[in-house]
Amino acid sequence: MRIAYKEALKAFEEDEVPVGCVIVKDNKVIAKAHNQKEKKNCAVSHAEIECIKKAARKLDNWNLKGCTIYVTLEPCMMCTGALINSRIDRIVYACRDPKGGALVSNVRIKEISGLNHYPLYEEGPVEKECSELLKSFFRNKRQKA
Amino acid sequence: MRIAYKEALKAFEEDEVPVGCVIVKDNKVIAKAHNQKEKKNCAVSHAEIECIKKAARKLDNWNLKGCTIYVTLEPCMMCTGALINSRIDRIVYACRDPKGGALVSNVRIKEISGLNHYPLYEEGPVEKECSELLKSFFRNKRQKA
Repeated sequence: MRIAYKEALKAFEEDEVPVGCVIVKDNKVIAKAHNQKEKKNCAVSHAEIECIKKAARKLDNWNLKGCTIYVTLEPCMMCTGALINSRIDRIVYACRDPKGGALVSNVRIKEISGLNHYPLYEEGPVEKECSELLKSFFRNKRQKA
Repeated sequence: MRIAYKEALKAFEEDEVPVGCVIVKDNKVIAKAHNQKEKKNCAVSHAEIECIKKAARKLDNWNLKGCTIYVTLEPCMMCTGALINSRIDRIVYACRDPKGGALVSNVRIKEISGLNHYPLYEEGPVEKECSELLKSFFRNKRQKA
């Protein structure tokens, strides 16, 4: 999660909502990415989507079985759906997103029946730093506005 | 929806799950795409995601306000989330996806509170052709298996 946090810092420096992630397989980081929505001017370019694309390219396989994603914020509906579609084994997130989170917050995947894959998920370390970084980003935004 | 269906036919010919879509603004098609999951070897490359990316590039704006997407199959959780994130006005789908659909089937967005955007959605025309194309694709797959 430390590497994911460093990715989130990159997003912060680029004036993007500071979210970062890494995908790990067999104890090796195979992909890392940060949110690039503003830079790429595309609503799809969340950290997780960028990271899934990189991991699939690296493995030459859309199926990310055997992989874990470490992400600094609970994934939104789009990213949770993408992680399900990619058949990732496990999602570790640093802090919850009460508004947009789609694992345990706004959408709770345990309550959705019939998904074709249910990744394991858990809250992980570095929560305070990841959450403070997000708060600081939105505080700056409000002050500028 | 006829153009979306033609896109789905392209996917069929490329041995991809046959889903196609177009994004329309001010009565003009600004983007069209078909499912490219196998070709791009990436779980993210559904028709809607490819189409959102093209539309955002065309408009030079991640925000697809004022746009409608016509898609041959009810979007999955990832694509519905992406359409919400892109603030699209309206989703017209030809046929429902009882297993993976995330508008009115497996996930019902009306029942999720607190999303930051609720696109309008409706079932549209060309249902039979779009549904037959999907059935034919999966029938061929089973026969080959």
